[in-house]
Amino acid sequence: MRILVVNPNTTQAMTDDNLELALVAAAPGTVVESLSPVDGPPSIEGHADEVIAAHYTLELVAETLGRYDGYVIACFGDPGVAACREIADVPVVGMAEAAMSMAGLVAHRWSIISPIPRGVPMFADLVRRYGLEARCASIRAVQMGVLEIAQDFDRAKRMILEEARRAIDEDGAEAILPGCAGFGPIDKAMQRELGVPVLDGVACGVKLVEALLGYGVTTAKVQAYLRPEPKPLTACSTGLVAAYASR
Amino acid sequence: MRILVVNPNTTQAMTDDNLELALVAAAPGTVVESLSPVDGPPSIEGHADEVIAAHYTLELVAETLGRYDGYVIACFGDPGVAACREIADVPVVGMAEAAMSMAGLVAHRWSIISPIPRGVPMFADLVRRYGLEARCASIRAVQMGVLEIAQDFDRAKRMILEEARRAIDEDGAEAILPGCAGFGPIDKAMQRELGVPVLDGVACGVKLVEALLGYGVTTAKVQAYLRPEPKPLTACSTGLVAAYASR
Amino acid sequence: MRILVVNPNTTQAMTDDNLELALVAAAPGTVVESLSPVDGPPSIEGHADEVIAAHYTLELVAETLGRYDGYVIACFGDPGVAACREIADVPVVGMAEAAMSMAGLVAHRWSIISPIPRGVPMFADLVRRYGLEARCASIRAVQMGVLEIAQDFDRAKRMILEEARRAIDEDGAEAILPGCAGFGPIDKAMQRELGVPVLDGVACGVKLVEALLGYGVTTAKVQAYLRPEPKPLTACSTGLVAAYASR
Amino acid sequence: MRILVVNPNTTQAMTDDNLELALVAAAPGTVVESLSPVDGPPSIEGHADEVIAAHYTLELVAETLGRYDGYVIACFGDPGVAACREIADVPVVGMAEAAMSMAGLVAHRWSIISPIPRGVPMFADLVRRYGLEARCASIRAVQMGVLEIAQDFDRAKRMILEEARRAIDEDGAEAILPGCAGFGPIDKAMQRELGVPVLDGVACGVKLVEALLGYGVTTAKVQAYLRPEPKPLTACSTGLVAAYASR
Amino acid sequence: MRILVVNPNTTQAMTDDNLELALVAAAPGTVVESLSPVDGPPSIEGHADEVIAAHYTLELVAETLGRYDGYVIACFGDPGVAACREIADVPVVGMAEAAMSMAGLVAHRWSIISPIPRGVPMFADLVRRYGLEARCASIRAVQMGVLEIAQDFDRAKRMILEEARRAIDEDGAEAILPGCAGFGPIDKAMQRELGVPVLDGVACGVKLVEALLGYGVTTAKVQAYLRPEPKPLTACSTGLVAAYASR
Amino acid sequence: MRILVVNPNTTQAMTDDNLELALVAAAPGTVVESLSPVDGPPSIEGHADEVIAAHYTLELVAETLGRYDGYVIACFGDPGVAACREIADVPVVGMAEAAMSMAGLVAHRWSIISPIPRGVPMFADLVRRYGLEARCASIRAVQMGVLEIAQDFDRAKRMILEEARRAIDEDGAEAILPGCAGFGPIDKAMQRELGVPVLDGVACGVKLVEALLGYGVTTAKVQAYLRPEPKPLTACSTGLVAAYASR
Repeated sequence: MRILVVNPNTTQAMTDDNLELALVAAAPGTVVESLSPVDGPPSIEGHADEVIAAHYTLELVAETLGRYDGYVIACFGDPGVAACREIADVPVVGMAEAAMSMAGLVAHRWSIISPIPRGVPMFADLVRRYGLEARCASIRAVQMGVLEIAQDFDRAKRMILEEARRAIDEDGAEAILPGCAGFGPIDKAMQRELGVPVLDGVACGVKLVEALLGYGVTTAKVQAYLRPEPKPLTACSTGLVAAYASR
Repeated sequence: MRILVVNPNTTQAMTDDNLELALVAAAPGTVVESLSPVDGPPSIEGHADEVIAAHYTLELVAETLGRYDGYVIACFGDPGVAACREIADVPVVGMAEAAMSMAGLVAHRWSIISPIPRGVPMFADLVRRYGLEARCASIRAVQMGVLEIAQDFDRAKRMILEEARRAIDEDGAEAILPGCAGFGPIDKAMQRELGVPVLDGVACGVKLVEALLGYGVTTAKVQAYLRPEPKPLTACSTGLVAAYASR
Repeated sequence: MRILVVNPNTTQAMTDDNLELALVAAAPGTVVESLSPVDGPPSIEGHADEVIAAHYTLELVAETLGRYDGYVIACFGDPGVAACREIADVPVVGMAEAAMSMAGLVAHRWSIISPIPRGVPMFADLVRRYGLEARCASIRAVQMGVLEIAQDFDRAKRMILEEARRAIDEDGAEAILPGCAGFGPIDKAMQRELGVPVLDGVACGVKLVEALLGYGVTTAKVQAYLRPEPKPLTACSTGLVAAYASR
Repeated sequence: MRILVVNPNTTQAMTDDNLELALVAAAPGTVVESLSPVDGPPSIEGHADEVIAAHYTLELVAETLGRYDGYVIACFGDPGVAACREIADVPVVGMAEAAMSMAGLVAHRWSIISPIPRGVPMFADLVRRYGLEARCASIRAVQMGVLEIAQDFDRAKRMILEEARRAIDEDGAEAILPGCAGFGPIDKAMQRELGVPVLDGVACGVKLVEALLGYGVTTAKVQAYLRPEPKPLTACSTGLVAAYASR
Repeated sequence: MRILVVNPNTTQAMTDDNLELALVAAAPGTVVESLSPVDGPPSIEGHADEVIAAHYTLELVAETLGRYDGYVIACFGDPGVAACREIADVPVVGMAEAAMSMAGLVAHRWSIISPIPRGVPMFADLVRRYGLEARCASIRAVQMGVLEIAQDFDRAKRMILEEARRAIDEDGAEAILPGCAGFGPIDKAMQRELGVPVLDGVACGVKLVEALLGYGVTTAKVQAYLRPEPKPLTACSTGLVAAYASR
Repeated sequence: MRILVVNPNTTQAMTDDNLELALVAAAPGTVVESLSPVDGPPSIEGHADEVIAAHYTLELVAETLGRYDGYVIACFGDPGVAACREIADVPVVGMAEAAMSMAGLVAHRWSIISPIPRGVPMFADLVRRYGLEARCASIRAVQMGVLEIAQDFDRAKRMILEEARRAIDEDGAEAILPGCAGFGPIDKAMQRELGVPVLDGVACGVKLVEALLGYGVTTAKVQAYLRPEPKPLTACSTGLVAAYASR
């Protein structure tokens, strides 16, 4: 079982962290690799970043089709996930939907902590997209650039812990979802301090792709995620052109 | 990793079928067992059945605490799941929430097929309880007693396939959730014939308990699933009394 | 017209209080009695308590079928109400749905005050089950064991008044629903002090059963509340076995 | 206990029918009367009708303040109910909310049958206003002017029965709410033929006003239904002017 | 293109202010006039006010049919809008729905500031009626009678700015909707100070009627807004009687 | 006032059609132009198409900043709209949200007709994103490739009319939203035949940008649509790089 964790931004250090997180979570026998696009934004913090990164994520998945049994998209906005499902026959899971799906099994309601305030409306849209408004206790934010997190994990942990505590005490959260792959490495430390489940979406994504593959289930190819209609594409990679043609 | 699949009804043949399904789905290294309560209804088809079965399911889980690393409750109404979460420190997953959680990763919307019409409002309540109305394309029913399924799998498959086809064609379903553990053994045959994912909740439950354990996450013990308040119980098993006392 | 108020826990003092409340509310000509199961938990404060109590409540209703023209289930979680509706031909009303139904006629939105914080997610599920999210201003909690209420009504009143005041001032509540039958005896005192309607569910339940009977309407027996499917039950009372058989 | 049933249209025959229905439903000891405004539309079938009738209903309630212990507004659009609550200290219940509130106690979901298709969006707005979308199985319509109903009860019954049957069979309705006071006189005949509860809102309104009065609860006067702010009114009755002044 | 702004209350100063606002917003070539009913309340602050004003607004629109190409109803409760749509063939837009519709194009979520607390539940109902709960960040209120606003614009601005700031900082609002036509004249000053869009509904209404007319679209006359059914009306103006008869 | 209509796909014929539609709708004095990206898919029919087109749409808007007073994104999926709002200071309106916003002013509920079935779940997500589920009567589809529409407008009209008729008769739609810019040229012919408003999103977008500009309101720059965080981008146009840098 080979799973590719795609870091949609171009920062190699985050790609490496993703891999580490994924390796810790992976079952024996699961081979995990991680890659990021060559082009696009070095971090994803808004809609424009996301639109660019979604395109390059799709390209990357297209380039690697046939080499992996499943994909995890490692950005909490789940950029390009639906598009990747169209071109791949194997499971594609976004880290946000992964974390939300697993959180619901251990908590009545959960909260998301965004690294920056502008993530709050983006995550609100995402929660609505998955239809999980009733399970989301709150979406809170700290103020920390995505790339600052790795530069000072201690500060990141302090800030997110404080906000998570408020989510638990004031909003009724019973689990915490760190709203950025960059927060991944501190999941277990946070869980110990908070005393509630802390679910990193990359780890959850790996476990859920394993679960889907283990049970023999993959993306439905009937309406929402049908293969792209065949059509000529310009300025796209050969992999993506091939994915469109292979219907 | 030891997982107990609890069949909340008393019919041993279904308990055996559950085990078989769970074994097929389980990862190498996962030990799966299945048990059912000695008392209660032989099948669960309505609210009264469910109320009785929930009690005996809770008793069974209480009796086995400490022997398993996780539980799957193998009835599509998820009877007693929240109660079992209170007394267990390990993950407890209901087959309905398991199937819904995994279906959302491979399908835009999914439909449930109930063995009997009276299941439709019960499942509608369940979908609302998990907050997944927007992801549920429809809840449809055939007319087949729970215990009749195993007596004639061919007829069961024919009936459910017909209704599932309507869910796909008329309601926009992209995945099918058989609304009864009894339908489990025909999941793969249905999937082949329908061409969309068919997700048996027992198999999904085993995969999700594995996923939770593999990532090191268990039930939040802060509000909804706090241990029961200590209190004297009468006419309950020693296991349950002990579970209450062990807070 | 004979109405039975069922206290789902085993504490006789609460059963007596229920009766008193019901008698005050009952119309001339209505005969009210109250009973509680012999077995089960002495108070209902969590999911496990509720699962056990629901079973014994169902047994109690089964034992008394034919002797009453309607039932009120006097615990704010409405345990076993749907199941009791299946076995009874006469109206069965839960105290929570009763209070919510009547509150909507006198208030734009209302709030529930739970005796303990762990009741909050339980009541949230209940509000969603009845589809009344838009009418519920908030669910707040004090910290008081169910059996402590009767031991110190003054303290209970002080605590609930304080929280109710916050619900009115901060959440927009226009009526208060005490989330426990134990709060019943202080309904009128609270109403006087708060200046908004305070609706005890036991009293509301009696009035609504009277209303249903007076108009000649009882539970629909077509899908959700059809009689249980006939089946052998073990370890259940003769009353419940008979209820199953009498279809 | 004196209850006034207000027929918001000017057709005396409907006012008489309302009274008859109310008398049948009323408890011993309840005095019921019915009145309709002198001015306004002879039937209420659209938004313009409703706007005019709401004004004259408000005037009528204002004129009769102090003479009744409660009001039932006998038009399925509940015209003017919120306004009447502002000027009255006693309970005011609309027939639509009354029927919906009682239906929820005996049925998982219910359907409304409108006399005319244009009522469907109006009733949809009303259901949303009360927050009951999840309990409403469907809103269906026949094609029959409001004043035609009384002219041919047999035809009315045939038409509504046919549509109600579809609501039960196709939409999952477990109770039927006739969406017009004019349908009232055939409630019990319909209930016998359909085998599910049929809830006339006028009868339900009387029972619920009795219930509120019997328990000692009336409209909250804190925000939504505060007395009107004192202000000069022109072209309004002396009763309404007095109601505004009496704050 | 001739647009009539209807001020539903009888205060001429507000009618004049409406006109000024509308003139500023109107495109070159748009002729705008404003009128208010002779009778009814001098301000609209509650449900009773609204019921009376809706009637006279309908009368006023009926009297002026044929003279205007579109109508804006200039009260944030949108009184009588649906009724006016029935009798007019030209577009009729309420100021609340206008502001909400345009706000959604420039802001993720928006908040309404009501002049008085009793407006909060009324506006909550309105937001639900338009189905926009997910876009409404909050409804907040200051404490200022509708007619006091014009008497002290400085105080009004100070109060609304303070509350708007809270909506932005605490509730996530990205645009502010002043919940009263009386606030109109301070829209641009507020916008400058707050740094977020401030949308006065009268101005928005004028722009949206222009937009509808410019594109050649008017009210659908198929179900919700069909012409009134012909029927005799008493105590209504000749204009309204004619509107009913002209079907 | 200069408005750019952006056709997110690369088919010049559609870009020309967009311009024609926009010109018809535009007010005197509005200058409208239309452009499409050089690269990307020739039509947008699924998620992958949309992800690619969103990127190139963002690039195109970035390249043209400063030259236009507003933008209309002319694809019914509203690809890249939120991202474009971040980089532009002037209004950006998607054709889908434009059509939905204007439809709500003339119809109680409306339906969307997608050119292909796979559009149905995409549009369902969009409706939910805008929070308009309660206003959407249905989403129906014909079976016609986006580029086939212009090749045979007669067939397109026949097919969409048939489905629109079903939406009106069976789903309660009162207005029709053609779910593709390609359907634009037949809006008025459809409106005449159907007798209900037919709202082309490109035309609506032009009118709404005019409305926003006319009233002096533009995108809120406080949270969801803040300028992108400054960061180095690779493989992006100089325009986009400049847009990121100009914060």
